[in-house]
Amino acid sequence: MNEIKIFSPATVANVSCGFDVLGFCLDTIGDEMVIRKTTEKGIKITKIVGADLPFEAHKNVASVSALALYNHANPDCGFEIEIYKNIKPGSGIGSSSASAAGSVFAINELLGRPYNQTQLTNFAMKGEAVASGCEHADNIAPALFGGFTLVKSTTPLQVLQLPTPEDLFVTIIHPQIEVKTSEARAILPKQIPLQNAITQWSNVGSLVHALHTNDYQLLSQALVDVVVEPYRSQLIPHFDSVKTEVIKAGALGAGISGSGPSIFALSKSKKTAEDVAKAMTTIYAKTAINFNTYVSKINTQGMKILS
Amino acid sequence: MNEIKIFSPATVANVSCGFDVLGFCLDTIGDEMVIRKTTEKGIKITKIVGADLPFEAHKNVASVSALALYNHANPDCGFEIEIYKNIKPGSGIGSSSASAAGSVFAINELLGRPYNQTQLTNFAMKGEAVASGCEHADNIAPALFGGFTLVKSTTPLQVLQLPTPEDLFVTIIHPQIEVKTSEARAILPKQIPLQNAITQWSNVGSLVHALHTNDYQLLSQALVDVVVEPYRSQLIPHFDSVKTEVIKAGALGAGISGSGPSIFALSKSKKTAEDVAKAMTTIYAKTAINFNTYVSKINTQGMKILS
Repeated sequence: MNEIKIFSPATVANVSCGFDVLGFCLDTIGDEMVIRKTTEKGIKITKIVGADLPFEAHKNVASVSALALYNHANPDCGFEIEIYKNIKPGSGIGSSSASAAGSVFAINELLGRPYNQTQLTNFAMKGEAVASGCEHADNIAPALFGGFTLVKSTTPLQVLQLPTPEDLFVTIIHPQIEVKTSEARAILPKQIPLQNAITQWSNVGSLVHALHTNDYQLLSQALVDVVVEPYRSQLIPHFDSVKTEVIKAGALGAGISGSGPSIFALSKSKKTAEDVAKAMTTIYAKTAINFNTYVSKINTQGMKILS
Repeated sequence: MNEIKIFSPATVANVSCGFDVLGFCLDTIGDEMVIRKTTEKGIKITKIVGADLPFEAHKNVASVSALALYNHANPDCGFEIEIYKNIKPGSGIGSSSASAAGSVFAINELLGRPYNQTQLTNFAMKGEAVASGCEHADNIAPALFGGFTLVKSTTPLQVLQLPTPEDLFVTIIHPQIEVKTSEARAILPKQIPLQNAITQWSNVGSLVHALHTNDYQLLSQALVDVVVEPYRSQLIPHFDSVKTEVIKAGALGAGISGSGPSIFALSKSKKTAEDVAKAMTTIYAKTAINFNTYVSKINTQGMKILS
């Protein structure tokens, strides 16, 4: 195999209570990437469609992560990368992670799979660091592993694959405003009340239990973030209204996707997830803010090989 | 049925990472209680063996919790309670909870089980409040539900039963020093670093996942407390040595049981749990502190009817 075309999925990090550790993978939203073996050694970005991103190998997250793998594997060939972005950079649904994870997944396939998913996550984190300034895995892990993931630790990297209830759908609204990850980080307090932390770890434990037991009601009750959302939601116009209305429309819960501005909601059926999309649309249609909405099943596969 | 004799188990609250929410139930350590219907209405403590505890109905945790149930049920009879304490008050393995939970469990049986376990937990929390000054359920829930429990919330009370791996054993050492729950509470900071909170909820999520997947290695990795133990361990002499030595002896992990002074360690087999007891004994035998050690399987049943 000398060329591969893949679907690299968008992802939702944090999942309300699981700031910095939980994430899940989307099914119908993602980039496409074509990666090709070359006789010339090294990594080259040859095409970027759909976004204004750097072509320099040391600046583009896809090539930085690819280089991490490449320098470790030291193969006899090189690789060129074409990126077809569907995930808008800065949307908060793992745009940089899709690029960083997609390139290492594809190259690993072309090399005959010398690396496992955890190793790929480690390489992809090097790319993610270019975009966000620090190595984190809460979007990369679900993109590579699929389904729900819990990043137990980053040094050493340990990713847990959690079960995904069959009927779980997600609705995303991406209001096209800019929320910088750095700004979203800076707004958070360095210290938090112990009592809030207890509530949060109770919810994380409950959410993991809910996923294992297919308990949608408990999942709903666990989708509460008392630590981060009160701060970051201030950066997203109409967040509170969206949250109120999607719950009315039947969603199990809603929260900020990653560091925003996208808002996600989980629902028990596709029909409800579509109703939730309508509720989100109704609110933002009254504003001057452009937006996109998406409905997706949870993608338990992660990366997909298209050809 | 006019009389019942029960075994009311000791319990371990917090379980390292799960401060205030996690707990598990012991099998071979616990009180016995005899509860008897009386024609005279009301609740009476008629016998206390093994501990110096108050007989006044409004001061003894067993009768306070019993009264909470009794006043709700309003039966035509009364009840008298005999308490045979084997769990030392102040040991940190749920002595007051055993009394508070035992009386409501037994009376519920004598009344034909009008209440479920969650309701019983609510009644027992009224008794626990007499002992600790606040209503909490992290010892009562495992005593009544058995196995591992997660208290999702206390208002309204919501208890989750977590699965228990088959080969899990616990070793307890109770150094006979006094650690007041109020002092153990006061030593904790009101605010904690966000980064530590993230580590803690990652561990809680991992521990719940480990219990669901029988993953002893992950269980071991999740039994880490970066929030409470650094403070409370100062109140327990030789805590660090005990922890180091029990890990060397093969334990999966160790921590403070409840607010101490007892230390618990979890192990994958009875043999290892016994080796761990020897390691604990070796350390405390060199000191002037009296102590007891216990080895127990995790008790998935909770309360037991003896006759």
